[in-house]
Amino acid sequence: MPIRHFDPSFTWERTPILQYKEDVGTHFKDITRQLLYEGSENIPCQLRYFEILSGGYSTLEMHEHIHVVMIMRGSGTMLLDEKIITIAAFDCIEIPSRSWHQLRATSPEPLGFLCVVSCVRDTPILPTQNDIAHLKTVVQVSSFLRV
Amino acid sequence: MPIRHFDPSFTWERTPILQYKEDVGTHFKDITRQLLYEGSENIPCQLRYFEILSGGYSTLEMHEHIHVVMIMRGSGTMLLDEKIITIAAFDCIEIPSRSWHQLRATSPEPLGFLCVVSCVRDTPILPTQNDIAHLKTVVQVSSFLRV
Repeated sequence: MPIRHFDPSFTWERTPILQYKEDVGTHFKDITRQLLYEGSENIPCQLRYFEILSGGYSTLEMHEHIHVVMIMRGSGTMLLDEKIITIAAFDCIEIPSRSWHQLRATSPEPLGFLCVVSCVRDTPILPTQNDIAHLKTVVQVSSFLRV
Repeated sequence: MPIRHFDPSFTWERTPILQYKEDVGTHFKDITRQLLYEGSENIPCQLRYFEILSGGYSTLEMHEHIHVVMIMRGSGTMLLDEKIITIAAFDCIEIPSRSWHQLRATSPEPLGFLCVVSCVRDTPILPTQNDIAHLKTVVQVSSFLRV
C-alpha cells in the first residue's frame, strides 16, 4: 500500500466498496465490504472492513475457519453459537471454528467492523431447515434470527 | 476468548496492560501493549493494541516481518523508510519488510493503534550509528528521529 488514509465516511484511499458476497441472496441485508490488506507470505491473512446499515444483517453461517472481529462504529447484536451478545465499538470477538454466527445492526448508525481472516479458507455453510429449527429451540435465538 | 468487551479507557476485558518490550531501553518512551488475539493454527497472527502517550515514541527499528497497523485514536507522525507521514484515526498502514519505522504521538490524546503481526517473526534490528547518520541525511527525517 503502504498507507491508506481514512476518510470520515469510513472509506479508505484506493479501497473500493465491494459487495458483501459475490453471490446474491436474501440471507443478508444492507452490507458492504472493503479489503484493507490482501495478505502476504508473511501475514497470510486478510484485513477487511464490513459495514451493515441500521436494520441490516450478515448471513447466518458457519465455517471451519476462524474470524477475529473488532467493532469500529455503531452497535448491534450478534448470534455466536447459541448465545445472543451485545456488541459495540472496539469490542473484540473471536468467532471459533464451526460456530453459527450472524451480526445485526440495531443502532441508528451503521455497524462497522474489521475482520481478520486466513487468505486460505473454506466456503461458509448455510443452515438447513433442521439447523434453523434446532437454533430456534433457544428462545432468545428464535426472535433474533434473520434467514 | 470469544469476546473481549471494550472499556472506554481503551482497555479490554481479561487483557493485561503489558510493557511495550521485554527489555528496558531508552530507545522508546511511554508506550504500552495489550495482546487481543494470540494467534491460532488457522490465523497464525497476533492482534495487539499499542498506546503511546503524548510526546512518546516507539523504537526506531526494522525487521524482516511485516506489520499491518490501524490507528485507533489520537494522531501523530511516523517514519516509514525515509519518509515522514502524518497518521490519524483509522488510517491503515503496511510496514513492509526491512523498512525503518518509528511512531510518535504528537496530539494531546494518546496515539493508539492495532497491529497485526505473524506469530513467528524475527527479532527487530536497531540502527547502527552509520544507519542513523544515513537517515539523518534526509532533512525531514533528521528532526524527527528519537534514538
